[in-house]
Amino acid sequence: MPAPPPATPQRPALNRDTTVCISLAGRPSNHGTFFHNHLYERYGLDFLYKSMTTDDVEGAIRGVRALGIRGCSVSMPFKQAVIPLVDAVDHSAEVIGAVNTIVNDAGRLTAYNTDVVAVASLLRTHRVDPASSFALRGSGGMARAVAGALHDAGFARGTVVARNEEDGRELARRYGYEWVPDAAGLRADLLVNVTPVGMEGGPEREELAFPEEAIDAARTVFDVVALPVETPLILRARAAGKETITGAEVAALQAAEQFALYTGVRPSPEEVDDAEAATRRGA
Amino acid sequence: MPAPPPATPQRPALNRDTTVCISLAGRPSNHGTFFHNHLYERYGLDFLYKSMTTDDVEGAIRGVRALGIRGCSVSMPFKQAVIPLVDAVDHSAEVIGAVNTIVNDAGRLTAYNTDVVAVASLLRTHRVDPASSFALRGSGGMARAVAGALHDAGFARGTVVARNEEDGRELARRYGYEWVPDAAGLRADLLVNVTPVGMEGGPEREELAFPEEAIDAARTVFDVVALPVETPLILRARAAGKETITGAEVAALQAAEQFALYTGVRPSPEEVDDAEAATRRGA
Repeated sequence: MPAPPPATPQRPALNRDTTVCISLAGRPSNHGTFFHNHLYERYGLDFLYKSMTTDDVEGAIRGVRALGIRGCSVSMPFKQAVIPLVDAVDHSAEVIGAVNTIVNDAGRLTAYNTDVVAVASLLRTHRVDPASSFALRGSGGMARAVAGALHDAGFARGTVVARNEEDGRELARRYGYEWVPDAAGLRADLLVNVTPVGMEGGPEREELAFPEEAIDAARTVFDVVALPVETPLILRARAAGKETITGAEVAALQAAEQFALYTGVRPSPEEVDDAEAATRRGA
Repeated sequence: MPAPPPATPQRPALNRDTTVCISLAGRPSNHGTFFHNHLYERYGLDFLYKSMTTDDVEGAIRGVRALGIRGCSVSMPFKQAVIPLVDAVDHSAEVIGAVNTIVNDAGRLTAYNTDVVAVASLLRTHRVDPASSFALRGSGGMARAVAGALHDAGFARGTVVARNEEDGRELARRYGYEWVPDAAGLRADLLVNVTPVGMEGGPEREELAFPEEAIDAARTVFDVVALPVETPLILRARAAGKETITGAEVAALQAAEQFALYTGVRPSPEEVDDAEAATRRGA
């Protein structure tokens, strides 16, 4: 059950007992810092969150442990490099060999991948039958997370659609799926887009990630693109009466999962939406 | 010149560019966290300060470097242990072999001792002649800082008064001073108390750290005890018309020095006093 925020939350001033969480990214954004601090404030939690970068990932993780930093979010290019530096790797990170979250329990570090957790959870809550066939477009880091979650949930009949043959074949082979270079003529029960097609500001922002015939033949359409929430793919699928899963759902769920791992508090979906909105406004 | 705070300081919300400073102590207090954050707020600086502890000082200092933490205040029991872990040791720390401040310039760590800097500065501003004889009571870490500052300023005629013979002889020998077990019959131009005698809440809070005859024979009386500001020793010295130097002056000056090293901003004495007062109120 998500916790309701207290009636009059009061986040204390920074003090010796304030719990510190950080992120490590090659090029830090403000997203995590705004998102997590907004929710700490909302729930009156004595936490702070600060994005950081490093040119010594081993020293950074040793510092997380030695300084008692409670949580460390991990972005590119450190998602693989941190694996040998932690004490335990949760199934969610193991299944794809990439980490986005480290939790420090009194010096013992456990690595998770909350993207995988979020995708797996959305496949369940949207009641996508693991016997379904699927076509997954993309072969980058997030495509690996989605493929790993699908494989883990028992989806055996899959096709990876990727122009990059080397990455596409590698990802398909890893989980025993097919690879094809493009989606022409493809049919599957579940379509998943994990490319920037349809993304705001991108060169393919007005394009459909799958052909109209594939959309009409599918039962469920899942777009990992979160900006805009309603991509051309999602709009076209809805118009055809399909079940849809949006990138906004993935983003909110993975962030909520990460927040819950650090704080022990599971924020309500409404609070996560508010935090995302506040983050986009820049505070 | 101390910088005046801007007319309408505005400390930004935590963001990816916020500069982080920490402290390392065996038993962290709230003092540094309250003091530095109060001044960041007052001057509208995009900094945060958080006290921490560690059971792996080498890993902690490696973390300071790897995570780009700008400043690290160092308390017991780490003041000696950090010396081999930094890239350069400023004269202030070298002279007594103990560090209370580390500054990180793009991965290059320099260690300072702002207690030594503060004591040296107060000896100058109160115009204490280095040709004076002095008696220093105490043999702990702060007594070493005061003795180091006196030696460094050219004071050659000194007596260390310490009940602990081993520590007292060791400190005296280090700088070529005398050692005596107690102050009976002692006369010196400058008296310095670096013991808890006269400290609020202590068992000797109503006692004079030096005999009345020694006070009457002195020119300057210096008490490192900061709570209360007016110790029995300071009150008695003032009544006898002596020049006095208080522990509050040391505390404020060493903290201002540390703040200036981290931020490049030298707070005005009034702002330091306000920050100390706010810190004591607990925010």
